[in-house]
Amino acid sequence: MKELEVRSDSHRQMVNITAQVRSAVEEMGAQDGEVRVYVPHTTAAVVINESADPDVVRDLLAAYEAMIPKISFRHAEGNSDAHLLSTLLGSSVAVPVLGGRMRLGTWQGIFFVELDGPRTRRVLVSVLG
Amino acid sequence: MKELEVRSDSHRQMVNITAQVRSAVEEMGAQDGEVRVYVPHTTAAVVINESADPDVVRDLLAAYEAMIPKISFRHAEGNSDAHLLSTLLGSSVAVPVLGGRMRLGTWQGIFFVELDGPRTRRVLVSVLG
Amino acid sequence: MKELEVRSDSHRQMVNITAQVRSAVEEMGAQDGEVRVYVPHTTAAVVINESADPDVVRDLLAAYEAMIPKISFRHAEGNSDAHLLSTLLGSSVAVPVLGGRMRLGTWQGIFFVELDGPRTRRVLVSVLG
Repeated sequence: MKELEVRSDSHRQMVNITAQVRSAVEEMGAQDGEVRVYVPHTTAAVVINESADPDVVRDLLAAYEAMIPKISFRHAEGNSDAHLLSTLLGSSVAVPVLGGRMRLGTWQGIFFVELDGPRTRRVLVSVLG
Repeated sequence: MKELEVRSDSHRQMVNITAQVRSAVEEMGAQDGEVRVYVPHTTAAVVINESADPDVVRDLLAAYEAMIPKISFRHAEGNSDAHLLSTLLGSSVAVPVLGGRMRLGTWQGIFFVELDGPRTRRVLVSVLG
Repeated sequence: MKELEVRSDSHRQMVNITAQVRSAVEEMGAQDGEVRVYVPHTTAAVVINESADPDVVRDLLAAYEAMIPKISFRHAEGNSDAHLLSTLLGSSVAVPVLGGRMRLGTWQGIFFVELDGPRTRRVLVSVLG
């Protein structure tokens, strides 16, 4: 298992961590199986989506914001919106590995999603199979 | 594989099953790999999020409710809202296991999400690696 | 690893791929572990939900549509709504396999979710454990 450090510099942010995950897979010498990318935080998430056009990431962040319902939250820390998005987007993703190579689609990248930053976060990368 | 029984006592409810999953991991003697928690139901889900402040769970349930669009559903059983939330939250989670211990983050717990209760439900726990 | 081809014939569509995934699991001779179904596309997803009543799928697609926020998207291809739903629904699912058999619940099926069709798509199926 490898631990990555990810720094966010705004409140909501999608950080492309594909290269770091790929390096971790190579260092661990995985051949066939899958790689798991796990976020041990409750106000962050990880998703797989388009990494080519940065406008996609901007649109995603704007849409997540707009989907948060306008209700009163009770949690005293005031970041229930971040907990909500974390559960909807998910705390981990897995990608198949074949012949030592992650089988991401042509346009896919792996993004750490900061929902209550800026902060320094940890991401766990492990291989199975 | 271990099968857990989870009882809900209201229509929507998040039941913290972290301790039961941890016990199952220990009984199965997993060392390094991951544990999968799988919900074999179509009107329930499983998520990982904060288990410290119970207000987070209340806020999450209120937000899920508020996000259900006000459209006419056709499904005769009248629980399409539960099917919808089930697909958005997801039917399984995985957590890395290292040295026999689940690597949940400090504030993370595993919650069975009842979306059409009260009912008695099953949860499958298996280890890989 | 097996690669399935899935054809969609409308803009949004849920295609039941349970039988194809089951055949792939049998061909690969998996005994105990899990099967991963991975979508290498950024405007499609995969979910597990009810396969008995086709009205559930109609309700799900109508609800996803209604949940897309009415904001201006910047991405020039005009399909940011599809990227959004892809990240909310997820790019992969896993199902436990025991004694060579996928442990789907009684009412569960595996659905490829086309969000920007019609297109011909690929789905990767692999077994672990």
